[in-house]
Amino acid sequence: MGSWEDYLAYNEKQYLEELIDFLKIPSISSLSEHASDVAAAADWVATRMERAGMDGVRVMPTGGHPVVYGEWLRSSDKPTVMIYGHFDTQPADPLDLWTTPPFEPTIRDKRVYARGASDDKGNMLAAIIGVEALLKSQENLPVNIKMFFEGQEEILSPQLPDFINTQRDLLSCDLILSADGGQWDREQPNIILGLRGSSALQIDVQGANRDVHSGAYGGAIHNPIHALTEIVGSMHSTDGRILVKGFYDMVKQTADEEKRLYEAVPYDESEFKNKLKLDDLHGEPGYSTYERLWVRPTVEVNGIWGGFQGEGTKTVIPNQAHAKISCRLVPDQDPEKILELVISHIENYAPKGVKVTIQPFKSTADPYLIPHDHPGNQAAHTVHKALYGKDPYYTRVGGSVPICSILQKTLGVHTVIFAFGTSENNVHAPDEFFDLEDFALAQKAYAMILNELSDRIF
Amino acid sequence: MGSWEDYLAYNEKQYLEELIDFLKIPSISSLSEHASDVAAAADWVATRMERAGMDGVRVMPTGGHPVVYGEWLRSSDKPTVMIYGHFDTQPADPLDLWTTPPFEPTIRDKRVYARGASDDKGNMLAAIIGVEALLKSQENLPVNIKMFFEGQEEILSPQLPDFINTQRDLLSCDLILSADGGQWDREQPNIILGLRGSSALQIDVQGANRDVHSGAYGGAIHNPIHALTEIVGSMHSTDGRILVKGFYDMVKQTADEEKRLYEAVPYDESEFKNKLKLDDLHGEPGYSTYERLWVRPTVEVNGIWGGFQGEGTKTVIPNQAHAKISCRLVPDQDPEKILELVISHIENYAPKGVKVTIQPFKSTADPYLIPHDHPGNQAAHTVHKALYGKDPYYTRVGGSVPICSILQKTLGVHTVIFAFGTSENNVHAPDEFFDLEDFALAQKAYAMILNELSDRIF
Repeated sequence: MGSWEDYLAYNEKQYLEELIDFLKIPSISSLSEHASDVAAAADWVATRMERAGMDGVRVMPTGGHPVVYGEWLRSSDKPTVMIYGHFDTQPADPLDLWTTPPFEPTIRDKRVYARGASDDKGNMLAAIIGVEALLKSQENLPVNIKMFFEGQEEILSPQLPDFINTQRDLLSCDLILSADGGQWDREQPNIILGLRGSSALQIDVQGANRDVHSGAYGGAIHNPIHALTEIVGSMHSTDGRILVKGFYDMVKQTADEEKRLYEAVPYDESEFKNKLKLDDLHGEPGYSTYERLWVRPTVEVNGIWGGFQGEGTKTVIPNQAHAKISCRLVPDQDPEKILELVISHIENYAPKGVKVTIQPFKSTADPYLIPHDHPGNQAAHTVHKALYGKDPYYTRVGGSVPICSILQKTLGVHTVIFAFGTSENNVHAPDEFFDLEDFALAQKAYAMILNELSDRIF
Repeated sequence: MGSWEDYLAYNEKQYLEELIDFLKIPSISSLSEHASDVAAAADWVATRMERAGMDGVRVMPTGGHPVVYGEWLRSSDKPTVMIYGHFDTQPADPLDLWTTPPFEPTIRDKRVYARGASDDKGNMLAAIIGVEALLKSQENLPVNIKMFFEGQEEILSPQLPDFINTQRDLLSCDLILSADGGQWDREQPNIILGLRGSSALQIDVQGANRDVHSGAYGGAIHNPIHALTEIVGSMHSTDGRILVKGFYDMVKQTADEEKRLYEAVPYDESEFKNKLKLDDLHGEPGYSTYERLWVRPTVEVNGIWGGFQGEGTKTVIPNQAHAKISCRLVPDQDPEKILELVISHIENYAPKGVKVTIQPFKSTADPYLIPHDHPGNQAAHTVHKALYGKDPYYTRVGGSVPICSILQKTLGVHTVIFAFGTSENNVHAPDEFFDLEDFALAQKAYAMILNELSDRIF
């Protein structure tokens, strides 16, 4: 038997064929007509895991799209690492913007183009392959392994919290590696320390029992749009602070050491502005752009509507106005508590003369944070340095990936995001692709990090 | 020859047939496919005026829908009264809500149902008939008469200001009677002393060059919806005052005598609220509901939109947000000056980080006011009292009828609104109707007021 590196090199062509095969399954989790494709992808993954040498591989029902679980637990004195990823994809529309069809994977310029190529089939398959290479070349693994792949990530994993809670014992581990994520760019590795949480609600303002003429009634009754803009406008100071009472109370100060890590990440403000064609940025006073995106929370109106939206004028006082609001949350803000604060703010500002109804949305996400010097990050750092020849940046991400905080809350274990796409991969957009070099790099990286984790104490 | 009353009674059936004939013409001014119908209605009116005994009857081009003019100027020592009305109609949709088709006039319950029955064909034809009855029964008229009927009232008379200005000499007169309007109700006459003016604009707020993810950018760039709600929210105090600098400066105090007239009009607040199913009213502090509607100006957001309006949540920072704003104006507010004030308010509140564009709409209306003791109103009062057996209310109207201020500005002459529909007539709605008794009443009323005006000095 040769080394795991030889094993990977020897099987390179076959792995690419496998990836193409995997990418042909249109496992779009949001479209019910593709439910059987998501199930087919689960079966494909289970078969692939068995071939990699996993024990007890099973497709497990969740009430929605299934998950696939498998394990290799024969190194009893070693840590147990769980690998997470997802085999469902985003929808592919608008189809006409794809150069080649989204579920007919095509190689161009050393890239494979297909929906899911980077997010997340390419990355999760690379992780399986990395494990296989170690196991087949050494007949052993440096750690115990659990694999946990889901089929509902792109629809916010509605059944996962319950499933994980029920399967706490099965899923117990010392560390999770998430194969869903990416690097700063193809030359620069990146360790993600945090994700913002989220919670959201809708405000509905009802005025009279019908739209009325602004001449006949204007001045004597409240206009739901005025009431709504008053409420929404009251949530921020003009200079960008959130004025919802208590909103910042639970925000944890960023540790000085962590702050220094973020300050070390290059930032080019004119490039940032130019990319969006903005003359000026706007945000909470006293914080840098990265801090505003990574360590500070937001209240954002995602949509507003009411009354006449056509050409010209219509002299109407509409009888309804609506707004959608979502918050991005940072440690230690609790999404439910934040909803309470925002709701009581709205209730305080709701004027007489209209009825204000608030509808909180069920899906919330806790913010997530992993210590920068967590053993998992130390291992990732070592692998990054070896593969890229440079130290990774340490950053956070402004968006939300609920699974990380769900796993942490339920299993008490941190997740290291360890994946090899970049922001250039057209994820969630037409012409999604994955560089074949990155596919190979990811396989190596997984083999390396498992070796690195072998002797770490969690 | 008998009296004009006998003449009206004798011809009652024929007048009803004429009205039905007139109502069959679908003279919808807003729909270009009905332009020839508007022209046909103009011809119908011209023919009817000639038969009534008018001299120099002519259909005159305006650049849009035509006007019809005719005159009887053989009482050289008497005042000249111009009668105004319009022969175009609103569209008829939704057609399925009509009991009988809108342009197939039908008599039910002593009412004629058809689009335009009350607004304004029934009322304007009654005025012609009133003049005819006097002229045919007495071979003379108590005043000089000009008739000026237009075909574009329902589309805000775009060509009328120019036309009236060009035809100042032809249209010169001492008083205008407008056959477009109505009474308080069928038992209670009403003299309208004022109309609010109007001006309107659109605010467009542009953020980044595209919609962006609220996780990826939230907190670091301005949200156009936030900027817009900030701007719009700054225009009113929470208790209902307009905060646009200088907005109230040109508002004329209501004369005490006029104020007392309005205070004499019955007002039932619980009925007013109940009609709209509102728990509370809302408006400028220190003013009654009638004052808020009649003598105080407004700034009203007629529509607002931006971002996601669908089901559930979408975590987007939209790159655009829009609002439509219109103002109702009272004497002596100038619509153009008000636009300037609102625009400079918006510019003052426009934050950095977004681009705010303001688009004023061209159609404005000056507010209109006629002294309560104007000789024309005195004459109307006498006629009302005789016909209804009670004194009229004196009110204003919260809406705008640009023609009154245009005529006053250009010809220097006041308009007495003298028409006999009511708010129950389903004007601008399905099943518009006119009570046959009111059609007859209006004919009498016109004969009577011309007699009343004969010896008044203007």
